[in-house]
Amino acid sequence: MSAEKAPTLLALDWGTTSLRAFLVAVDGTVVERLSAPRGILQVKDGDFAAALEEIAGAWLARHPELPALASGMIGSRQGWREAPYAEAPAGLAELAKGLVSVAGRQGRRLAIVPGVVYRAAAAPPDVMRGEETQMLGALAAAPPAGPTVFVLPGTHSKWAIAEAGRIVWFATFMTGELYAVLKAESILGRLMAGEAEDARSFHRGLARAADASPAAGALLHKLFSARSLALFDELPASGIASYLSGLLIGSELDEALAAVSARLGARPLRVTLIGEAALSRLYLAALAERQIAGHLAEPDATARGLLAIAQAAGLLG
Amino acid sequence: MSAEKAPTLLALDWGTTSLRAFLVAVDGTVVERLSAPRGILQVKDGDFAAALEEIAGAWLARHPELPALASGMIGSRQGWREAPYAEAPAGLAELAKGLVSVAGRQGRRLAIVPGVVYRAAAAPPDVMRGEETQMLGALAAAPPAGPTVFVLPGTHSKWAIAEAGRIVWFATFMTGELYAVLKAESILGRLMAGEAEDARSFHRGLARAADASPAAGALLHKLFSARSLALFDELPASGIASYLSGLLIGSELDEALAAVSARLGARPLRVTLIGEAALSRLYLAALAERQIAGHLAEPDATARGLLAIAQAAGLLG
Repeated sequence: MSAEKAPTLLALDWGTTSLRAFLVAVDGTVVERLSAPRGILQVKDGDFAAALEEIAGAWLARHPELPALASGMIGSRQGWREAPYAEAPAGLAELAKGLVSVAGRQGRRLAIVPGVVYRAAAAPPDVMRGEETQMLGALAAAPPAGPTVFVLPGTHSKWAIAEAGRIVWFATFMTGELYAVLKAESILGRLMAGEAEDARSFHRGLARAADASPAAGALLHKLFSARSLALFDELPASGIASYLSGLLIGSELDEALAAVSARLGARPLRVTLIGEAALSRLYLAALAERQIAGHLAEPDATARGLLAIAQAAGLLG
Repeated sequence: MSAEKAPTLLALDWGTTSLRAFLVAVDGTVVERLSAPRGILQVKDGDFAAALEEIAGAWLARHPELPALASGMIGSRQGWREAPYAEAPAGLAELAKGLVSVAGRQGRRLAIVPGVVYRAAAAPPDVMRGEETQMLGALAAAPPAGPTVFVLPGTHSKWAIAEAGRIVWFATFMTGELYAVLKAESILGRLMAGEAEDARSFHRGLARAADASPAAGALLHKLFSARSLALFDELPASGIASYLSGLLIGSELDEALAAVSARLGARPLRVTLIGEAALSRLYLAALAERQIAGHLAEPDATARGLLAIAQAAGLLG
């Protein structure tokens, strides 16, 4: 059915390692989709126009007048053209105002969504590129009554608060990257047997992270428990990866929830997760242990977000 | 002068990646010393007897009756023979009681010092091997009036409290290993230009670590500031390594000092550092920023510790 709808936008989620493309109908339905390993680091000689033609040329031949809009690292200094960060609070209007435009093949244009920077007094800036579009897409799909807490787990996890359609705060956590480098390179990785698939060890890691007593230390000390527990056979080698995953995700929750509470007070939270399904399930389990309700965002948040930004920018004619 | 004293012990600091050997006089003076890349991971076919002969054979030929004592990973499961961990609190008597003995070439014996395990209710165990000997050596060189706080910075930094000649508490922090894997494998490492030699950026990292406000997050969030500050040219590429070093060492101090205060109360601390000189200076600078007095232990703490343990065990005849 949805394949019969007319596309109104070519939407591109163009990141560091992958490119996803969508033909989107005016109601946000994804009519067709493609993905390819054509992230900005994989594009030969930085010829982004050729990469766009390769991935979406057939669509563009069929729909020569279709406007095109991209979000993600394609707008970074290493991408096609830098789209300077919009300052938070940022919503559809601020992002639409910050679009930059590049020329593709045969006179085609591609607009690029800016990232967002969050600045607070006396703290380093924080940045995102691509996640802002996903969050605004999720808000467009299901407009909330009050503030929304978003979690986008991954290499650099993002936590954010949206109020009245704008991203008012966010923070980045290097959880996924830390897990990856510790697994690949550290003594903990050398002790691991197998992947992170042991639910019991994952929950033990969560529990260790949650111990806030001074004697328990924080992350630098708690990481060593993966080694010492394994040494005394109190943690199976097959559980070390899951234990480390629980320890890191639990630590991220502690850090992020403290910051969120500082902004929103002690009101009950409902967290919206946007991300890969298996990882999102781990976060839902971790949130549930802290009595926090979480749910997955509607799918295709990026396509919906790009449509909403294109509408706000008057790109749809 | 010291070369004229008669040796009373062959002392070996036999770790994972290196072997250091000392001829020690009865007053703790090191008469001769050697070191070699013959850590337990480098000993071919696990033939530790051959490695000992190679490094100390000439000495042993000159002093055939000299007792020999080793500490470090040589007593681990991967070493010559496992010397089961002594339980903390542990001092000279407990370590002497836990010695194991192996047979070298030509009927020679080598005694091996056990490591120490610290167990607290409802927390994972913590372990050390080699550091216990260094600390007891430092205590023997300069017996303190009250409790001593030790810091042994490194790949797996140790903090410990000694009271009345015994190690009563300790904790391990994976600071050095985290620095190494982030430098080698993460986006932070890829952004770095040069080594950690920028004092200003080191102190900025310390200051970021010290921000305990909920909005500041903890390590997982603070790590990303090395990326975001660099992105806006607020941190030079040549300062990223030092900033990360300051952030990690400062975070270790926060974790460790909270645990130490929980044990010792708010009394003024004087911290004794045992470790490599350049790294120890960074820790002294970090402690000084928190108004904590630190000083370096007397040199040759391992040799002194091994002598004291040998005396306690009656090895010196």
